[in-house]
Amino acid sequence: MKDSTRTRTSREAILDATDRLLARYGYKKMTIEDLANEVGIGKGSVYLHFSSKEEIALSHIDRIIERLKTRLVGISNESGDSVTKLRRMMIDRVMYRFESVQHYTQSLNELLARLRAKLLDRRRRYFEEEAKIFARVIEEGKKSGEFECKDPMETARSIIDATNALLPYSLSVHELGERSEVENKITRIADLLLLGIVSRKQ
Amino acid sequence: MKDSTRTRTSREAILDATDRLLARYGYKKMTIEDLANEVGIGKGSVYLHFSSKEEIALSHIDRIIERLKTRLVGISNESGDSVTKLRRMMIDRVMYRFESVQHYTQSLNELLARLRAKLLDRRRRYFEEEAKIFARVIEEGKKSGEFECKDPMETARSIIDATNALLPYSLSVHELGERSEVENKITRIADLLLLGIVSRKQ
Repeated sequence: MKDSTRTRTSREAILDATDRLLARYGYKKMTIEDLANEVGIGKGSVYLHFSSKEEIALSHIDRIIERLKTRLVGISNESGDSVTKLRRMMIDRVMYRFESVQHYTQSLNELLARLRAKLLDRRRRYFEEEAKIFARVIEEGKKSGEFECKDPMETARSIIDATNALLPYSLSVHELGERSEVENKITRIADLLLLGIVSRKQ
Repeated sequence: MKDSTRTRTSREAILDATDRLLARYGYKKMTIEDLANEVGIGKGSVYLHFSSKEEIALSHIDRIIERLKTRLVGISNESGDSVTKLRRMMIDRVMYRFESVQHYTQSLNELLARLRAKLLDRRRRYFEEEAKIFARVIEEGKKSGEFECKDPMETARSIIDATNALLPYSLSVHELGERSEVENKITRIADLLLLGIVSRKQ
């Protein structure tokens, strides 16, 4: 195994362990030592990859977003009409995040409260990256005559803003348990937003 | 002064003092004693109205929402077309909250992190109450032929959901300082949502 591969593998293993331990202990109780034990490496090896528990938790969230972006790019590259793809992408960006934290909804509140300030700054970047993927599909639908809008990137940003209140960050523990309620809400918003951009000439 | 009037007055005075002290000290440092001193009453008098500092902070937020609802009802009762009223209401519900916390944006983060769980539960009620006011205007616009939608209350709820990510709760300290950025974002979302419900027969 190459060094770079090994480095990537243990970094991934630490983040996998984080995902399990957030469910088992919660953020506050989880220690670097617990993580090292769970992976089967020394504490020092954890510090080779991450400087603090906070950085590990934030990297764990980064990884969820990276995986989501891969899914969104996948949908955007499929064949088919732009309306259907954009609708699926809006619903997927909410539901994928929802599923990703389902096994630790009880401790999520504590994690998000503790990381609030840093996470809010990070979210700006996440949202801009997602908006770029959405903008490509809107541009494509504009060319095909399916959509009507002036600036695809601005419209993409508005769509991101308009669906952000349904991300786990803004949901209570109760709402995080209500998959169908969240899915209904995002579906209704998606359909309302689509009505706002589909071409009226069709 | 009647007893009930006096009770209301000192309750209001405590909440006014809370607003000033959140700016001066922040939530964590602010004590019940500071509040009593600021109002010019005894600590015991504060406890006649509120059981804890947490309850005071939540009541302070409740009061912002009560005032906002009065404004929204005011707009909804004005003469004029429903499209303009609905647009103003969407922008106002975001900007009024923004203005309400402008003098303590630095300490808001700490306040919201500490009250996160309780506040999220409370928000469900706030949003439902606001949706009812929005639904009346949508119903009115439906009757006048301005809007097309199946269920005004469902549409109102989606509008609330779609504008919620711009409330102070979800903004970083940096974004809380950028009035024009938040105003641009909510205006774009409002216009996109309106496109989704205005009648296409006009």
